[in-house]
Amino acid sequence: MDKLQQSSYVVCLAFSIVLNLSLIFKLYGHGGQWELSWSRRAAEEAEYVAAVPCSGHGRTYLDGLVLDGKQPACECNSCYGGSDCSQFLTDCESNADGGDPYFLEPFWMQHASESAILVAGWHRMGYTFSDYAYISQELERLIRKVHDIAGNAVTQGRYIVIGAGSTHLLNAAVKALSFSSTSSFNSSSSSPASVVVSIPFYALYEAQTEYFRSVDYKFEGDGSLLQNITDGTKRVIEFVTAPNNPDGKLNKANFQGPNSEAIYDRVYYWPHFTPIPTPANDNVMVFSISKLTGHAGTRLGWAVIKDEEVYQRMLQHTLTSNLGISRDAQLRALKLLKVVVEGGGKEIFQFGYTTMRNRWENLSNALSVSNRFSLQKVEPQYCTFFQKIRGPSPAFAWVKCEREEDKDCYTVLKEEANVYGRSGSVFGAEDRYVRLALIRSQDDFDILLYRLNQLVSKEDAQPQIYMKNVTNPSLS
Amino acid sequence: MDKLQQSSYVVCLAFSIVLNLSLIFKLYGHGGQWELSWSRRAAEEAEYVAAVPCSGHGRTYLDGLVLDGKQPACECNSCYGGSDCSQFLTDCESNADGGDPYFLEPFWMQHASESAILVAGWHRMGYTFSDYAYISQELERLIRKVHDIAGNAVTQGRYIVIGAGSTHLLNAAVKALSFSSTSSFNSSSSSPASVVVSIPFYALYEAQTEYFRSVDYKFEGDGSLLQNITDGTKRVIEFVTAPNNPDGKLNKANFQGPNSEAIYDRVYYWPHFTPIPTPANDNVMVFSISKLTGHAGTRLGWAVIKDEEVYQRMLQHTLTSNLGISRDAQLRALKLLKVVVEGGGKEIFQFGYTTMRNRWENLSNALSVSNRFSLQKVEPQYCTFFQKIRGPSPAFAWVKCEREEDKDCYTVLKEEANVYGRSGSVFGAEDRYVRLALIRSQDDFDILLYRLNQLVSKEDAQPQIYMKNVTNPSLS
Repeated sequence: MDKLQQSSYVVCLAFSIVLNLSLIFKLYGHGGQWELSWSRRAAEEAEYVAAVPCSGHGRTYLDGLVLDGKQPACECNSCYGGSDCSQFLTDCESNADGGDPYFLEPFWMQHASESAILVAGWHRMGYTFSDYAYISQELERLIRKVHDIAGNAVTQGRYIVIGAGSTHLLNAAVKALSFSSTSSFNSSSSSPASVVVSIPFYALYEAQTEYFRSVDYKFEGDGSLLQNITDGTKRVIEFVTAPNNPDGKLNKANFQGPNSEAIYDRVYYWPHFTPIPTPANDNVMVFSISKLTGHAGTRLGWAVIKDEEVYQRMLQHTLTSNLGISRDAQLRALKLLKVVVEGGGKEIFQFGYTTMRNRWENLSNALSVSNRFSLQKVEPQYCTFFQKIRGPSPAFAWVKCEREEDKDCYTVLKEEANVYGRSGSVFGAEDRYVRLALIRSQDDFDILLYRLNQLVSKEDAQPQIYMKNVTNPSLS
Repeated sequence: MDKLQQSSYVVCLAFSIVLNLSLIFKLYGHGGQWELSWSRRAAEEAEYVAAVPCSGHGRTYLDGLVLDGKQPACECNSCYGGSDCSQFLTDCESNADGGDPYFLEPFWMQHASESAILVAGWHRMGYTFSDYAYISQELERLIRKVHDIAGNAVTQGRYIVIGAGSTHLLNAAVKALSFSSTSSFNSSSSSPASVVVSIPFYALYEAQTEYFRSVDYKFEGDGSLLQNITDGTKRVIEFVTAPNNPDGKLNKANFQGPNSEAIYDRVYYWPHFTPIPTPANDNVMVFSISKLTGHAGTRLGWAVIKDEEVYQRMLQHTLTSNLGISRDAQLRALKLLKVVVEGGGKEIFQFGYTTMRNRWENLSNALSVSNRFSLQKVEPQYCTFFQKIRGPSPAFAWVKCEREEDKDCYTVLKEEANVYGRSGSVFGAEDRYVRLALIRSQDDFDILLYRLNQLVSKEDAQPQIYMKNVTNPSLS
């Protein structure tokens, strides 16, 4: 009896000690895990909010609405509804209009741990960093690093200025170049510089340049019209978008000479969207975190600038208009770029390219059987980043309605397929064209593809008298 | 022997069980503590960085430099140096120039847990919120709530637009009002609206208005000069700063009538800096998170607007110039405002007022024995927030050099006390005045006070022939 009792004690003791050890390991064993104090509440809150599944067709956010004072509300993707986004809304509009770059959202969910940031209440309260600069040195370093990795821009010996997205920097560049001495521009000159574009072009260039009604510059639209009448003495600032929004072409400046300056909008010049033939080396180049990592909402872009005076003027623009760029946006960008450069950028660019390439192939396949709709042609090209010839993966489809009577392609897609794109006329082109955004969420793309497949399948039932136009539909 | 052995087993087992229970409690016992997964790394990183003490005279930041690839580098307050900020730099410049609102930093360190945010990598990637708005509904709700609590502005039935700090909104307001139909303003009118101020005034109004060189408005400086020559048909946009920067006066608009519009810059109209006699109810009022919570670096401000058309135009301005305001800045502001409104705002306003009041009293005492320097006079007034008459606690000291020969007060303080303020001429006033910022860190204020005390103490050693001028030194 005593022996038996003693054996039970030994067994119990052994079990208890094993439990001790496993608990101790769990508490302290992960390589000296930090015991969290003031950060725990925020971390728990974030995980609590993120844990709501929303049926895989929506998302909850820290700053979203809160139901019954506790449960974060699901914000459903287009075409999904109900409190948990489980309901498919069959009659919904297919949104292919705005360029929200949610195609990279799954990448960030896969890299949750590396990309999370905990911001302390006292983080960066002042106007400047401790070196009196308005940009974090670490952020600038990472921006240069990511260009080195992608091989898409020369940054050695160049100045970098950040802005509240490329939007902020485009006007900063127009303003700076309208004054620039590098092109013999003179601030006291009586006639404003002419701001020009190539058709089709991103509408903001016109809207923004006209909005400020500055005496220093004037939007004059299609540069090719101006080119024919100018003798080279007219001061010209040219927006060059490469790859172009909407058609993905790697545009080049049309204006040369001492009185011309180009603003290269290179926000889509990343391996996601285009082969990178060579590092860009233009005088003024604009990039954004929005099209690199998908964080449009963060509002952070940068310009890479050759000339010091232009740099100083652009920096001054960001200060006079906004008194610098949000430290919170800078911290976010810093963290995201850290993840991008890990492992030489392979991961995000492979993810981005694969996603965009698949979408383009699916869309091309859907429209290949159509005589009514055609897509822009993009030739395969050697990409120095992937070190191979690669096919197209553009951010947008630039669709042409080929039938004579389909003069308004936007309305055709809207009325016959419930697909909402963006009219060609918004880009200064014919309304026979419509832009479809391919960078939105997977749900958005899936619905778009489904609707287009349905639309194209109806063609067979109708007599076709038009030949498919196979020329490049780009107008520029 | 067996008995003894058995007793030892019992004791060991009991001890082991107690240890197990305490470990289990530690692991799972805090009211069902969330087991952290993807957020843990960010939380640990933030605590690791924040744990570096920097001798209490500096700070480490998540986006600061990193020493030897690991240890975050201390960024020292002015007048402190060394790798751990322990070295007092006796010959350092006393910085009383910029308005970095670090006086509230200790408040946020005391509220570390409530004010921390953990931002997930996929947080708010799109351009808009799910309701297609550019402002979080929760943020707008909290902005209205904080005004209700402070009793400093009417927001019921008013529109709210956010901007990248007040800086962004000031130009948005000028632009919007230059077009506004509410004052019979007409966009096709040939003559630009006159933008005016009262002296002394915040220099950005002039710098920004002139910078954009718009055909819609023109900076005309001192409104009182214009008032004498205008017959009331001239379109006038008046900047009214209340409390005024630099002198703290609760300015009112000088221009009335159908052709005049005022932009009330009310960023200092919080109980920290001024008694709140009544809720402000102006047509266009601008506020900022910078002067409310001390987060200048976040770049977030808002305007409270009566007229819908003016609101729409200001919103359009924020979109055309920046395509909306950083979602990261909005999330930060949301969290900070949540802490502010907890407990009816008592905590932060009491902290802010006590700090600023103490600083003002110390400064007043230091200069009260001086015949050479005088301060602006601020009368005690009833404050509806604190429900009592309270003394002054302004953000800035507006110092006058009383000696005939001290025509350049900035240089006097710089050369005789190594104190760097901001010249009167920067505010359109005489250089006999200088602005000293009182809202900076406690280290900055302590050094300022020490230097001024030293300077004043030297006066006794010199013959005094000037009587102290006791009139209000404000020029407006």
